Amino acid sequence: MSHEPTMEAPEPAPFSEVPAGFRFGAVRAGIKPSGKPDFACVHTPESTTAAAVFTSNRLVAAPVIVGREHLRQSGGVVRFVAVNAGNANCATGEQGVQACRSVCAAAAKEFGCSEQDVFPSSTGIIGVPLPTEKLIAALPKIASELGESSAHIQQFAEAILTTDTRAKVASAKIEVNSKPVRILGVAKGAGMIAPQLVPHATMLVYLFTDASIVATDLQTFLNDAIEPTFNCISIDGDTSTNDTVLLLASGASGATPKLKNDSSAFGNALREVCASLARQIIEDGEGVGHVIELAIEGAPTAADARRVARSIANSPLVKTAFAGCDPNWGRILAAAGYSGVALSSGAVSIWIGGLPVCYHGQVAQDFDKDSVHQAMLKRTVKVVVNLGMGNATCQFLACDLTAEYVRVNAEYST
Amino acid sequence: MSHEPTMEAPEPAPFSEVPAGFRFGAVRAGIKPSGKPDFACVHTPESTTAAAVFTSNRLVAAPVIVGREHLRQSGGVVRFVAVNAGNANCATGEQGVQACRSVCAAAAKEFGCSEQDVFPSSTGIIGVPLPTEKLIAALPKIASELGESSAHIQQFAEAILTTDTRAKVASAKIEVNSKPVRILGVAKGAGMIAPQLVPHATMLVYLFTDASIVATDLQTFLNDAIEPTFNCISIDGDTSTNDTVLLLASGASGATPKLKNDSSAFGNALREVCASLARQIIEDGEGVGHVIELAIEGAPTAADARRVARSIANSPLVKTAFAGCDPNWGRILAAAGYSGVALSSGAVSIWIGGLPVCYHGQVAQDFDKDSVHQAMLKRTVKVVVNLGMGNATCQFLACDLTAEYVRVNAEYST
Repeated sequence: MSHEPTMEAPEPAPFSEVPAGFRFGAVRAGIKPSGKPDFACVHTPESTTAAAVFTSNRLVAAPVIVGREHLRQSGGVVRFVAVNAGNANCATGEQGVQACRSVCAAAAKEFGCSEQDVFPSSTGIIGVPLPTEKLIAALPKIASELGESSAHIQQFAEAILTTDTRAKVASAKIEVNSKPVRILGVAKGAGMIAPQLVPHATMLVYLFTDASIVATDLQTFLNDAIEPTFNCISIDGDTSTNDTVLLLASGASGATPKLKNDSSAFGNALREVCASLARQIIEDGEGVGHVIELAIEGAPTAADARRVARSIANSPLVKTAFAGCDPNWGRILAAAGYSGVALSSGAVSIWIGGLPVCYHGQVAQDFDKDSVHQAMLKRTVKVVVNLGMGNATCQFLACDLTAEYVRVNAEYST
Repeated sequence: MSHEPTMEAPEPAPFSEVPAGFRFGAVRAGIKPSGKPDFACVHTPESTTAAAVFTSNRLVAAPVIVGREHLRQSGGVVRFVAVNAGNANCATGEQGVQACRSVCAAAAKEFGCSEQDVFPSSTGIIGVPLPTEKLIAALPKIASELGESSAHIQQFAEAILTTDTRAKVASAKIEVNSKPVRILGVAKGAGMIAPQLVPHATMLVYLFTDASIVATDLQTFLNDAIEPTFNCISIDGDTSTNDTVLLLASGASGATPKLKNDSSAFGNALREVCASLARQIIEDGEGVGHVIELAIEGAPTAADARRVARSIANSPLVKTAFAGCDPNWGRILAAAGYSGVALSSGAVSIWIGGLPVCYHGQVAQDFDKDSVHQAMLKRTVKVVVNLGMGNATCQFLACDLTAEYVRVNAEYST
């Protein structure tokens, strides 16, 4: 018997802060079978700097190849972002790379920039040729519809979705040198989510700020922000071929957060926007019934903590136990044990929903199965695993594995 | 829409060969809530040598700790095997180890052997104290019911089951020095199955032969047999805390297969028995609708081939695609790509059910989605992934991920 969570998924936080300088748009190019908008673009001001991280999957999509190359060639300049949903342009060979280039070239012509200043992204089915002609034909319409309003951002956020059920947006405002600096993030992703970005997700995330930051510093800010956020979530353990996080800084605020002096304020705000988007992705995971807030404590190193977290987060037996609200903590212990970290069973303690279930490798004395079961009926369940070996920690967001997940992913699309 | 397989699971092969010297028995000790037989034992002749491999999970059950210690102390002698189902005696601390020792001591007394000659195994729920008094009280009944017949072996094979739906037995007969030598294997396991034995499963496997082999040679035969068999299967990717494979040689045939001279005959027969049992475990995997015969070819090394196989075998997106008979080969490619092996996307080719789906990293020219879908309706589907990098290969058995799997594992046991 599976149990319904007692709480609904929270609504995404409204976004109130729009960084100056960016213009957004989205149109129907005819790629999504649903006929919904599927081509989303951002036009940036000339001063914009860029930093990006990509998937660590060895087989990467054409837009990842081209996007990396363009950032290297331009030295961190992006004037136009072109994102299509409904087709991943992955496993499409050299033709796929050429298709990506032809869309970039057409966008460069339409918007008067260099081809290397166009940043491409694709998400959707793998192994199907990209219908470039549809995208290129849609560019003039995009050009006529770009705008800076919240409605434009919402259109952008919706057009990039695939199996997602809702748009994912977050924003923040800080002060740098008494000047207001804004950060906006837009993300998509609900399946094939286990980003392992190597100061590098089919997670696509676009981050915008009107701070003025040189590309190298922007990359450092981004690398720091993704580690505890996008690199600490997993829906299914499947690391995508297309994961991309792009951070653009328009400079329109006239304020420059310094890495050493002001990083706390800007860096923290950027990390909070990333954390909100990462959370929204898990909340909207395919078939998700429960969100698992996993805290690993007492690990020898942060890398060990994350390895244990990922092993627990991806265990089908742990995930189905949470789907069934079953306090079967032995599955958590077993998953920690095969993580590759040299654990000592007598040192491991586990709490579920704040209640002790395992103390020093054995059932906790005051373990009350029914109380833990009750705690697990909530949509969000906190799990603490203390390894008793050191001081390193990891916060990781995971989710359960439900029959609905299987239904969503076992559908044969004729 | 999910699809029913068109073929039923095959019946396990009948076992016709019973190695001389071993006596089997099983009784109801009252551990399984179902009230079925749950305590299974084997009494061996004095000449018996033993070799074993255990799980690589860092958190191991008490019987794994004690079994390892006994084999070391005895120098590879086992006179009595005591297996209980319904309780894993894992995460039970020092009391769990003491509980295991007290059962071994009582068995040693009942059967007139040394405590270190008793080999214990447990399988079932993790974190619940072992009810030693029930097991000890059942020993006299076991002693009175031991026997060598096929019926006795069948009782043994059934008593060790947990979520399994059927007993798993295989046998072989070869000639060594013109003398008949028999091999019999008995296994259990349907979930928490992703053995990574380090010349070392909750897979429990007991192998019996009447060959005469010294313990060190027996260990070598066992190490060679498990690598391409039990170490190349996965139901859920969850490596258990209790996995154990025990090989016992009674010597009753009077024939000694030599490692160098006769290994081909005996080693091959042992590997075939292991391969049959490994296959039976996958066929009986929790909620299994399809068995996936995965062949990785063209890998740089055998270790790389197995890493790619395991990554594909454990991908929820690959497994749900097979549940839905969906020829979504991009998921296979993506899982290969995050295996950690340095693949080149342009070199990878994939066949499903003998039909080309991906050639050199792109959709195969003659890819016919509906034909592949038809091929995937069969219960057993062969998948070949050629990495195009070298000559190493791996044969790996996996299965799909069905809504039934979730149902079985999300049940809250009050």
